[in-house]
Amino acid sequence: MAILVTGGLGYIGSHTVVELLNNNFEVVIVDDLSNSERFILKNIEEITGKKPVFYPFDLKRKELLTQVFDAHQIDGCINFAASKAVGESQIKPVDYYENNLFSLINILQEFKERGISNFIFSSSCTVYGQADQMPIDENTPLKLPESVYGKTKQMGEEILMDFAKAYHRKISLLRYFNPIGAHPSGIIGELPIGVPNNLVPYVMQTAAGIREKLNVWGDDYPTVDGTAVRDYIYVVDLAKAHVVALKKLMEDHSDVATIDIYNLGTGKGSSVLEVVKAFETANNVAVPYQICDRREGDITIAYANVDKAQKELNWKSETSLEEALRTVWQWQQYLNTRNA
Amino acid sequence: MAILVTGGLGYIGSHTVVELLNNNFEVVIVDDLSNSERFILKNIEEITGKKPVFYPFDLKRKELLTQVFDAHQIDGCINFAASKAVGESQIKPVDYYENNLFSLINILQEFKERGISNFIFSSSCTVYGQADQMPIDENTPLKLPESVYGKTKQMGEEILMDFAKAYHRKISLLRYFNPIGAHPSGIIGELPIGVPNNLVPYVMQTAAGIREKLNVWGDDYPTVDGTAVRDYIYVVDLAKAHVVALKKLMEDHSDVATIDIYNLGTGKGSSVLEVVKAFETANNVAVPYQICDRREGDITIAYANVDKAQKELNWKSETSLEEALRTVWQWQQYLNTRNA
Repeated sequence: MAILVTGGLGYIGSHTVVELLNNNFEVVIVDDLSNSERFILKNIEEITGKKPVFYPFDLKRKELLTQVFDAHQIDGCINFAASKAVGESQIKPVDYYENNLFSLINILQEFKERGISNFIFSSSCTVYGQADQMPIDENTPLKLPESVYGKTKQMGEEILMDFAKAYHRKISLLRYFNPIGAHPSGIIGELPIGVPNNLVPYVMQTAAGIREKLNVWGDDYPTVDGTAVRDYIYVVDLAKAHVVALKKLMEDHSDVATIDIYNLGTGKGSSVLEVVKAFETANNVAVPYQICDRREGDITIAYANVDKAQKELNWKSETSLEEALRTVWQWQQYLNTRNA
Repeated sequence: MAILVTGGLGYIGSHTVVELLNNNFEVVIVDDLSNSERFILKNIEEITGKKPVFYPFDLKRKELLTQVFDAHQIDGCINFAASKAVGESQIKPVDYYENNLFSLINILQEFKERGISNFIFSSSCTVYGQADQMPIDENTPLKLPESVYGKTKQMGEEILMDFAKAYHRKISLLRYFNPIGAHPSGIIGELPIGVPNNLVPYVMQTAAGIREKLNVWGDDYPTVDGTAVRDYIYVVDLAKAHVVALKKLMEDHSDVATIDIYNLGTGKGSSVLEVVKAFETANNVAVPYQICDRREGDITIAYANVDKAQKELNWKSETSLEEALRTVWQWQQYLNTRNA
């Protein structure tokens, strides 16, 4: 029995594949390499000493997906495959809806027809928008996300809940806060393709001299130091949450729908400047930055209440911000040697 | 230059094709015949004396859709093709999401790549849920619909608005209230496939003796006679609204996004028992009924404020409830002769 991991060579996907293999799951990866690279597969094998099955194709190709389900006894899926750049999603909405919805629905058709349960969906705290209260727990009202990316996540959640109810299946919607860091081995991490969209990869490249300066978008927010606050969760901790969420679904043999929803964060907010300073301290390196105007669409503050995941999954974040940022710098060194 | 009409042999689609042909549009129909029949095409030709192009395939087959766009100079689309049974959508959610979203997104990919504008979308008053105030105008806040069918309509609206904004295209979202009636020729109308889901086809079949009794779901609502109130719009009036909405988009040569949203109704609510009595009076026939318990998920009352369509499209409903119901009975007589 194998777990299908779509987008399994991507950032969170690759770290989760490592944890699944370490927990003796058989893993079948489908990844179209649109935002990942083949060497990640080799490095997963190096870290774990195990070989996941890998299929390089786009999940919109339903006939190829059907062949994967024919060839393997799939017992669950963790669906990471998705286009995920917020800014790009505004410029290319049709592609985002197509990529993110077709891939999900194609998999659900296979699940439906073959009676498979156990589906874990990569959702995001973006479904809460700027929440009225902090911290954000799972009962916080959802807001229509401003970005197309966020809407594809909210639609995905709706589709999956209807799937679970109609066919009595088991699903988890995992709402990630801000994943950061790389594997402690230093050989898998977040691949910087183009100009990074997220804070930590940009900090990393600035420290490495690839970018001249970090742009800090606004220092007049009502926060500790005026910069925006997020909840940065270490990617390996996040990956482990997928394994426990999956095990919970698989141990549930009832014949009713199960819809688990968990916020995955640390429970603690950090400002942009706190992250910059933590990076400098952790790695003894300078990160030049400049304050810019606020960026449209950015929210002020978001951090999670993580009690539910702790209580129901016995999971919590275990890695400090500084520790996580040390792995980022190790990863940059690895990328330097690869490029050398 | 031709207008693509998807679902053009369906209920509202076929009436709209007639109006388009009467207004000298070239029409290309794509319809998979899943909820329509070929004789409708013949009857459209009989009514109009014109021949639309017809392709019988499922819009999920992107490669066939591309061939249609290659073969014709498509200048706009009216997208009727969709699965539309509310109850069924709860039981088969994955099929509903697949049918209704893939077809829409496949067409938008063609529009995007070929620079085509002018897209008219069949939406529904279901996006308002049970509105807090009557009548419902276009600024009434949307609610997450309870049914999967309704969610596919709300998602379709979101996708189209993002499409229009990103690519500077022109779209209309037409929110139908409750379409009823048949063409005055009596040879196209709402095909009763299986047990009717909607009130008027059920009334028609009860009057015809096909159903024993009409079930009236609840007579203790806070309405004029205790039965639920809806806004019944004559299908030919509704079809004409599509033509004027399309002309408005096509006459707009600006280079910015246009997002038109119109409620299409009569502006007047009628209770279930008022419809039954109007049918009996109009057609001099008895409609036996029994009062049943309320049906879960039914809203109490919904009728439109139609000022916006009147002002901007110079369109309004022109046909009385009784007149509309007379065409229904004519259509039943036609179906009788076909079955004889």
